Amino acid sequence: MAGSTFGTMFRISTWGESHGRGIGVVIDGCPAGLPLCGSDIQPYLDRRKPGQSKFTTRRKEGDQIEILSGVFEGVTTGTPISLLVFNEDQQSRDYSEIASYYRPGHADYTFDEKYGFRDYRGGGRSSGRESIGRVAAGAIALKLLKELGIELLSYSKEIGGISISPENFDRKEIMKNAFYMPDQEAAEKVASYVEEKMSEKDSAGGIIECVITGMPAGIGEPVFDKLDANLAKAVMSIGAVKGVEIGDGFDAAKAVGSYNNDEFITDVKGITKKTNHAGGILGGMSDGSAIILRAAIKPTPSIAAAQRTVNKSGESITVNIQGRHDPIIVPRAVVVVEAMAGLVLIDMLLMGMTSKIDKIVEFYKK
Amino acid sequence: MAGSTFGTMFRISTWGESHGRGIGVVIDGCPAGLPLCGSDIQPYLDRRKPGQSKFTTRRKEGDQIEILSGVFEGVTTGTPISLLVFNEDQQSRDYSEIASYYRPGHADYTFDEKYGFRDYRGGGRSSGRESIGRVAAGAIALKLLKELGIELLSYSKEIGGISISPENFDRKEIMKNAFYMPDQEAAEKVASYVEEKMSEKDSAGGIIECVITGMPAGIGEPVFDKLDANLAKAVMSIGAVKGVEIGDGFDAAKAVGSYNNDEFITDVKGITKKTNHAGGILGGMSDGSAIILRAAIKPTPSIAAAQRTVNKSGESITVNIQGRHDPIIVPRAVVVVEAMAGLVLIDMLLMGMTSKIDKIVEFYKK
Amino acid sequence: MAGSTFGTMFRISTWGESHGRGIGVVIDGCPAGLPLCGSDIQPYLDRRKPGQSKFTTRRKEGDQIEILSGVFEGVTTGTPISLLVFNEDQQSRDYSEIASYYRPGHADYTFDEKYGFRDYRGGGRSSGRESIGRVAAGAIALKLLKELGIELLSYSKEIGGISISPENFDRKEIMKNAFYMPDQEAAEKVASYVEEKMSEKDSAGGIIECVITGMPAGIGEPVFDKLDANLAKAVMSIGAVKGVEIGDGFDAAKAVGSYNNDEFITDVKGITKKTNHAGGILGGMSDGSAIILRAAIKPTPSIAAAQRTVNKSGESITVNIQGRHDPIIVPRAVVVVEAMAGLVLIDMLLMGMTSKIDKIVEFYKK
Amino acid sequence: MAGSTFGTMFRISTWGESHGRGIGVVIDGCPAGLPLCGSDIQPYLDRRKPGQSKFTTRRKEGDQIEILSGVFEGVTTGTPISLLVFNEDQQSRDYSEIASYYRPGHADYTFDEKYGFRDYRGGGRSSGRESIGRVAAGAIALKLLKELGIELLSYSKEIGGISISPENFDRKEIMKNAFYMPDQEAAEKVASYVEEKMSEKDSAGGIIECVITGMPAGIGEPVFDKLDANLAKAVMSIGAVKGVEIGDGFDAAKAVGSYNNDEFITDVKGITKKTNHAGGILGGMSDGSAIILRAAIKPTPSIAAAQRTVNKSGESITVNIQGRHDPIIVPRAVVVVEAMAGLVLIDMLLMGMTSKIDKIVEFYKK
Repeated sequence: MAGSTFGTMFRISTWGESHGRGIGVVIDGCPAGLPLCGSDIQPYLDRRKPGQSKFTTRRKEGDQIEILSGVFEGVTTGTPISLLVFNEDQQSRDYSEIASYYRPGHADYTFDEKYGFRDYRGGGRSSGRESIGRVAAGAIALKLLKELGIELLSYSKEIGGISISPENFDRKEIMKNAFYMPDQEAAEKVASYVEEKMSEKDSAGGIIECVITGMPAGIGEPVFDKLDANLAKAVMSIGAVKGVEIGDGFDAAKAVGSYNNDEFITDVKGITKKTNHAGGILGGMSDGSAIILRAAIKPTPSIAAAQRTVNKSGESITVNIQGRHDPIIVPRAVVVVEAMAGLVLIDMLLMGMTSKIDKIVEFYKK
Repeated sequence: MAGSTFGTMFRISTWGESHGRGIGVVIDGCPAGLPLCGSDIQPYLDRRKPGQSKFTTRRKEGDQIEILSGVFEGVTTGTPISLLVFNEDQQSRDYSEIASYYRPGHADYTFDEKYGFRDYRGGGRSSGRESIGRVAAGAIALKLLKELGIELLSYSKEIGGISISPENFDRKEIMKNAFYMPDQEAAEKVASYVEEKMSEKDSAGGIIECVITGMPAGIGEPVFDKLDANLAKAVMSIGAVKGVEIGDGFDAAKAVGSYNNDEFITDVKGITKKTNHAGGILGGMSDGSAIILRAAIKPTPSIAAAQRTVNKSGESITVNIQGRHDPIIVPRAVVVVEAMAGLVLIDMLLMGMTSKIDKIVEFYKK
Repeated sequence: MAGSTFGTMFRISTWGESHGRGIGVVIDGCPAGLPLCGSDIQPYLDRRKPGQSKFTTRRKEGDQIEILSGVFEGVTTGTPISLLVFNEDQQSRDYSEIASYYRPGHADYTFDEKYGFRDYRGGGRSSGRESIGRVAAGAIALKLLKELGIELLSYSKEIGGISISPENFDRKEIMKNAFYMPDQEAAEKVASYVEEKMSEKDSAGGIIECVITGMPAGIGEPVFDKLDANLAKAVMSIGAVKGVEIGDGFDAAKAVGSYNNDEFITDVKGITKKTNHAGGILGGMSDGSAIILRAAIKPTPSIAAAQRTVNKSGESITVNIQGRHDPIIVPRAVVVVEAMAGLVLIDMLLMGMTSKIDKIVEFYKK
Repeated sequence: MAGSTFGTMFRISTWGESHGRGIGVVIDGCPAGLPLCGSDIQPYLDRRKPGQSKFTTRRKEGDQIEILSGVFEGVTTGTPISLLVFNEDQQSRDYSEIASYYRPGHADYTFDEKYGFRDYRGGGRSSGRESIGRVAAGAIALKLLKELGIELLSYSKEIGGISISPENFDRKEIMKNAFYMPDQEAAEKVASYVEEKMSEKDSAGGIIECVITGMPAGIGEPVFDKLDANLAKAVMSIGAVKGVEIGDGFDAAKAVGSYNNDEFITDVKGITKKTNHAGGILGGMSDGSAIILRAAIKPTPSIAAAQRTVNKSGESITVNIQGRHDPIIVPRAVVVVEAMAGLVLIDMLLMGMTSKIDKIVEFYKK
């Protein structure tokens, strides 16, 4: 198990390298009957596509999705959906020198240790382009979720220590700035900060937040396959993520129980909670409140400044990494976090159909 | 899949409720030839056993492990190892009232939503006693890891906002105080803090850290089964965990690349890193440095203070939760984090044997 | 993965050796709300229990089932069900000599090759007693299936070449004779045959058939997880099974298409088939007709007659295997085949709930 | 889980329909370091390609394999290998009528029941072309096995009741006749038989045998993941297979123990067996002898003769199935059986590396 497969009932297998023929994904377990065409998927890929602003790599990729199977007359058939994006702008020459040494903060050394060698062109399989398969599959998951009344809202919450302000929160703003921040003022400060880092040949990190509304209560499996546990794995599996939180997260570690406990109340829709420190998950199962998820993203490891490292012989050298790199990964990773969350949610919703014998009997008796 | 199974090659299935007959685990995939007896496991269970200090529940449990299968003449046979701890002190009367309402911060409501009803005695399956199966299986994983030269050191890093100080760090201190803190001074401050919370009928939370040394480089699978992703799931699946970090974690989100990147250097043992912001994992694979893992634990949801909530009919009520509860979960959860990390490590080490064809040929040609 | 785990949504993990403390199984994924007590399971275990007739081993085992978890107030809770049977009559002295040599037809040699040594007492994990866990879990699967209107009928179809006759088929006869044959006349002939083999210190084999009625159409997953593929694995995984057939099985290989194709017709219940050469499965999915499954069981490898083999040093020796053995495995294996088929059916029915988006939306919108 | 994923450590996901864009497979878990190019795979695809003789469909397909990922500079990298064959000769008009009724012996009805509708063009996902993904992935598995000294020999053993004779067995003959039979005389008789069936607008079935040599002893996992159990699933999952046997198979059911038991002996290579009724597997693990596997293949369900069936409204109709069909599936399925067996063997060999702690310690200590 080389780890490129994810999910149980809604299972995806991704493939592809930065400078190979292309990137793709096979989705095994998508229910039949969902209208699906490329334009359901393309907008998600466009959100992570390079070249959307001056804060992303200059690599030019159309990232046009092709659906190769699993859809007939515009509708999913229940059989595997194969999705493919061809690579276009593979400037392999940029990367030839990298073959001989280990870039700090990259997977070069660990790939060599694991496999004995590596596809060094643009990071190979550990390139950010690997996330294309996740996003393409996630787009389908998100469309299924929408059918069930579940919506995900994702954005940059903080970049370089500059955080959005709750008072300024404006969801319409998210798609308007290069950082996918729901706060125009914060986005402007971030733009200055990132420009500064670029001029210093340095890079920046940040925090992504994803808010999920419409989830029915009781989704997730107690013990190991808790909803939060599977979300944590999904999000931590994204390159550059170094931390994951649910609800109050690390702040909960400083709180007291009388504050952190959310009071149950009854409103027009039924039982709900007065506060949501728990982030919508209790005992590993959704509690009907909004699910709140955050991911810490490290600064881009590829920086233009000179760095010290070793070559494959272990000799210390100074390197200046050329190539086309994002000064910050956060904005393009927003849709990746959303996609991974969507994949977990649909998988656990499908699994959640089997928890009660009376519902199963009712399902089959009709 | 009700989610009580964990791992691929070293796979465990846990079972049991707080007030049922007992708690147990079946380990499927433990290699043959490991000397094993109850005394290899018991010390780990004793670390999470109640009644070790005044800061834990007054419930009395011997938590004596029994090995029912998979060991012959003192050595593992390669077949499933069944481990069992009988429950002894089930004061069911403490819990009868709980059946009628939803405790804030607990899984009562979500269990009812998922399954239609619940075993309300002591939290049933969502009790902290569920972790006995994890710890018992983890003890075996940790013994296997020791054979491979891998050690885990786990402790409380912060409780109620009071953090250990790097200068005072003393690993021998960990087992000497009730909080498993490697800093005597901090432990004393914490004792006062927790006593204060107890007197206020309130509870506290904190942060657990686990440091893993001796891991070979190249362990973990790129993409979804990254070592950090699987660790994140393992740790987030522990009740009360609300956040997980690797290395600098959320601090990395504020850093710049030139700081966060760890320089590769060569020392007597070979290629290594000058710093360890990455926490020993690059691209989802171990890089040979110490792996650093942290978990945020929320304050115990069961508090003696009066709380508002709803009953099963949705009517608002005030409750005073009786029963025997820990004012803080953190100390007893330290060994659970260590066990879960150990389970992930051994699983990925077993999987990691198959990454190179020449090593496979060598393995089978002998 | 040591292979003692089976199933995806309804997942079981079995453990235990012939002469260890006991035999057990953990069921992870049983839906909540099923009334369950020991007497639902015990009759199935009694069908495979030794000592039911002179044609079985003289080993005395009560095989009393205990339910350790997952049931509260007489109803399944959705959490893991742990089942346990203690071993009682472990005459370990019978087996001490066996440690030094490899019994023909047994797993002694292969266990040693795989694990380096083995628990030689009564075959250890490869004993027929291993099937207790399968049958106990299967009993619960079969109870769930009954709730869905699905019934399994299993019996010996042929022993020592003596086959039941379609004209004599009488399902009430199955539980009346020692061979679980639905044909009194054939059962009597078989009794003489087996007695003859016993007097010759030899053993016999046979064929078990299982007929499943009430299955809705469309259950099973195309491609690898075909219903027949999963049934084949389930049945072939039973010790001593050497062949599996669906419907006409190997006879279909000799037939022509015009004969083998089953004509679709419409009757009062809707679309059905005029004949059933396919054995109720088309393209890996149930077609609504009875599912017909057969297993070939080899003769008991433990025979009292002298045999040639080698000891652990590779020296040829003559052995006379003592101990208590069945002259025929077939009758006691009937319920094991039924249990394994039941486990597959419930697993695939649970998975089958997710095939259509409109059914999923309907499920969650209510 | 829609069932298009197979294997644990060497895991494949296939996709594609008869008349879609193409057919493909993603292999996740192929070890790094294997030299691989299209010409390693193409010969296997050519063995199942249509148009190789007058006994196959007239559909014209080049079935040219493309490697899209996972190979760098001619060597596997350890990351997923994506393989693709484009469909060329999709005469969709042949199939339009089929949409309205249920072909006898086909999966039309069961697909409709499961998914609500189906891609009716050429059988869609249940077409024989689905096996392209299996064969392409299997070719890589077989190359890996060759590195380990393991070879598979597969052929038609019987067609239309005409069986090969042991005396005439000639492995060089297999690739010389249209039926892949290792017996020229039998192949000639079969040619006459199949021609007769073609003239009668009918079809034929048969039995495929696969013999595996060079397997080390001790491969396979006791209990559910027995080597024979996984082989049975693999082979039964191939369309048109109705039975699976290991070794003497159903004949063992008629034998006595003194005959069926294989005597262990010692020869120059070490411990082996005098006979091989067991077919190389004892207790679910390889015993070092040749593994012998057989599959019963039903006659092609698509026949030119008029047949009775029902349309989607349930009305009885007479149909004459047009289109391009093989009068017999057996010859083209030979390589599919071999591929599936190869996939199981490599998967279980990879899993088998973790059975002993001393071997694991040795592996990591170097």
